[in-house]
Amino acid sequence: MPVGTLATVKALDPEDLVQMGASMILGNAYHLHLRPGDEVVREMGGLHRFMRWDGPILTDSGGFQVFSLAQLRTIDEQGVEFQSHIDGSRRFFTPEIVMQIERNLGADVIMQFDHVIPGQSDESSARDASDRSIRWLVRCLAEIRRLEASQPLEDPREEMPADNPRNHQALFPIVQGGIHAHLRQEAATRIRDLHDWAGFGIGGLSVGEEKDAMYQMLEIVDDALPKTHPRYLMGVGFPEDLVEGIRRGVDLFDCVAPTRMGRNGAVFTRDGRLNIKRTEYRTDPRPLDPECDCSACRRFTRAYIRHLFVADEILGLRLLSLHNVHFLLSLARAARQSIRNGDLDSWSRDWLARYRSASPLPV
Amino acid sequence: MPVGTLATVKALDPEDLVQMGASMILGNAYHLHLRPGDEVVREMGGLHRFMRWDGPILTDSGGFQVFSLAQLRTIDEQGVEFQSHIDGSRRFFTPEIVMQIERNLGADVIMQFDHVIPGQSDESSARDASDRSIRWLVRCLAEIRRLEASQPLEDPREEMPADNPRNHQALFPIVQGGIHAHLRQEAATRIRDLHDWAGFGIGGLSVGEEKDAMYQMLEIVDDALPKTHPRYLMGVGFPEDLVEGIRRGVDLFDCVAPTRMGRNGAVFTRDGRLNIKRTEYRTDPRPLDPECDCSACRRFTRAYIRHLFVADEILGLRLLSLHNVHFLLSLARAARQSIRNGDLDSWSRDWLARYRSASPLPV
Repeated sequence: MPVGTLATVKALDPEDLVQMGASMILGNAYHLHLRPGDEVVREMGGLHRFMRWDGPILTDSGGFQVFSLAQLRTIDEQGVEFQSHIDGSRRFFTPEIVMQIERNLGADVIMQFDHVIPGQSDESSARDASDRSIRWLVRCLAEIRRLEASQPLEDPREEMPADNPRNHQALFPIVQGGIHAHLRQEAATRIRDLHDWAGFGIGGLSVGEEKDAMYQMLEIVDDALPKTHPRYLMGVGFPEDLVEGIRRGVDLFDCVAPTRMGRNGAVFTRDGRLNIKRTEYRTDPRPLDPECDCSACRRFTRAYIRHLFVADEILGLRLLSLHNVHFLLSLARAARQSIRNGDLDSWSRDWLARYRSASPLPV
Repeated sequence: MPVGTLATVKALDPEDLVQMGASMILGNAYHLHLRPGDEVVREMGGLHRFMRWDGPILTDSGGFQVFSLAQLRTIDEQGVEFQSHIDGSRRFFTPEIVMQIERNLGADVIMQFDHVIPGQSDESSARDASDRSIRWLVRCLAEIRRLEASQPLEDPREEMPADNPRNHQALFPIVQGGIHAHLRQEAATRIRDLHDWAGFGIGGLSVGEEKDAMYQMLEIVDDALPKTHPRYLMGVGFPEDLVEGIRRGVDLFDCVAPTRMGRNGAVFTRDGRLNIKRTEYRTDPRPLDPECDCSACRRFTRAYIRHLFVADEILGLRLLSLHNVHFLLSLARAARQSIRNGDLDSWSRDWLARYRSASPLPV
C-alpha cells in the first residue's frame, strides 16, 4: 500500500497511482485528525471523496504516531494524553475516540488503537503493552459496532446500493509482543480466538531490532494466524523486507520508504539502490532501472533526473517517488505470480541474491 | 508559453502540458548554461530530447538574467562579464557565446543576446542599450549562421528528413527602447529593415513601469512591425496583461506568474485571483474555478487543495501550477477564437470587466 499519510501519497497524483496499478492505499488517523481534522474530512464526504481515491483505503490508528511523534505523553488504561507535534495543543486519544476519528475518515479497513513500545523493550514492558492493546481492541470493536449503527457512511462511489456494503468498516487487530517469541505467540493466539477478524495487523517490528528477530517473529505469527486471512506487516518495507515478509506469509505492507527515499534521491533497482545525485550520472543516458517500465523510466534519462535533483526541481521528487512506488508494486505482483506458479521459494532466493549482490552504493 | 527555465515547467510533468494543450514552451540559456551546462544538454541530444518535449521550444538568451540575477557585471561593447548567481564563478557572455549556448540547447526559436536596462532608465541610457542591442543582434545573426553550417542539429524527433528543417534555428531580435516612444519606434523600424526575421521580441517591458506606458509602447511597436510576423512580449504576463497585449497585436507571451504564484497558493479565476490558503476555503466543496475544466478543477475541491497547502504537500503545488497554466492557455485560446470571430474588442472588454470587477482579494 502506497502511504498517503495526509490524504495524498507524497509528490504523486492519484492518477499516477491508478496508472501504476495501485489498489489499496493508506491514510493516517493521527495526522488527519490534526490536519485538516477528521470532522472536515467527514464533512467533505469522507476520505475517498476528499482525496479522490475510489479504491480501498486503510487508515492507521495513530498508535504509532502518538508514541513516536507526539510529546509529553501520559498513558493509562483509559488512553493517552499527548501534545500535537504541529501546534503543541493538548489531545486525548482513547480506543473509542480513535474509532470515532476512523469512522469520520470512513476507510474500508481501520486499525485498532494500540499501545506501541520501543523495539527493544524488555519482556515486562512488552507484555504490559500487548495485554493493554488487546483490552483496547475489545473496546475498539464495541465502539465501531456502535458507530456503524448510529453513524451511517455514505458510499463514496456515489452509487449507494440498498445494503450499502461500505457502511461496514473492517477492524484489524494488531499483534504486538516485541521481539519476545512467546509473547507474540500468545498475542496472536488470543487475538485470533477473540473474534472473526477480516485480517490481522502485525505491529512493533522493523523499529530497530535485528532483521533475524523480525523474521523469527513473523514465522511465529504466521503459524498462529489462519492462513485464509490477510496479514499486514505495519510500516514495512524496503524491497528486501517485502520479499522476506512474503516468504513468511505476509500479504500487506506499507512504508514511507519509496516516497521519502525518493525525495532524497534514492532509487530502487533490480541491482540494489543507487543515488541519482551522484556525479557519475551527469550524462548517463540510461533510465533509472533499465528493466523498469514505469512512466519515469519509459521517458527520462538518469542525466535528466539528476539535473532535476541538482536544480531542486519538483518534477524530480515526483519521478523518483513514482519509480520507487512502481518498483514495490511490481515486486509484489511478481511475488504473487510466483506463488501462483508454485515457485516462490526459488524466485525469492534469486531475486534477493541479485538485489543483494550489487556492490552497496552509498545512498 | 509555459516557462521551463531549467528544462522543466516547475511542478509539472510534460504530460500535464500536453494534456492541457500547451504547444510551445520556454527554456533559459543563462540558467541551463549554469545547470546542467549547455554542453551536457547537447551531449544528451539537445533540449527537446533531454526534457522530453516534442513541441517547439524557445530559449531566452539570458540577457535579462545577466542583468538582473548575476552579480558584479562589467559591460563593454564586446559583452558582459559577470558572476554566476549559483556559485560565484566568473563568466563571460558575448553575442557569439550566447549563440553557441543556444545552439547547444537546440531550441526552435532563439532570442538574441541584448543589453537590458532598468525599466525607468533615462533616455540616454535607454538609447545606448538599444543601439548596442542592435549591434549585438547583427553579431548574433552572423554567429548563428556560422553555427548552422558548422554544427548541424540532430532532429530531436528521431526521424531525420533529408533536408533536416530542424537544423535552422529562428533567431528573434528584441525591440528595446525603455518607455521612450521615439526610441521604441526607431528600434522597431531599424530592426525590421535589417533582415527578414521570423518574428520579433519586445523586451524591457513589465519591469516596473506604469501599465499605461507599457500599452503605449506596445501600440508604437505594433504599428512599426509587419502584421504578418509573430510578436513576443517577453516576461509578460498576468491574465489581464495577456488580454491587453493581444488587443495590441501581441502573439506570444511567457511568464513565471502562473507557476510561481501557484506555488504560493494564488489561483487565477474568471472573477479575479483568490488565495487558496485562506480559512474561508476550509470546507469549500467547489473547484478552484467553477468554469474551469482543468484536471485539478475536474477532480478536487478547494477544501482539499487548501489542505494540501496547509500541510505543505507537493501535490498542492502541482495542482495550482496546473490550473494557472491551463487558465492562461485557455484564455489565449479564447482570445484567438474571438479574433477569428471578429469580436476581439467586445470579447476582451467583457472579459476584463468581469475579471477586474471582483472585489480585490489579498493574495
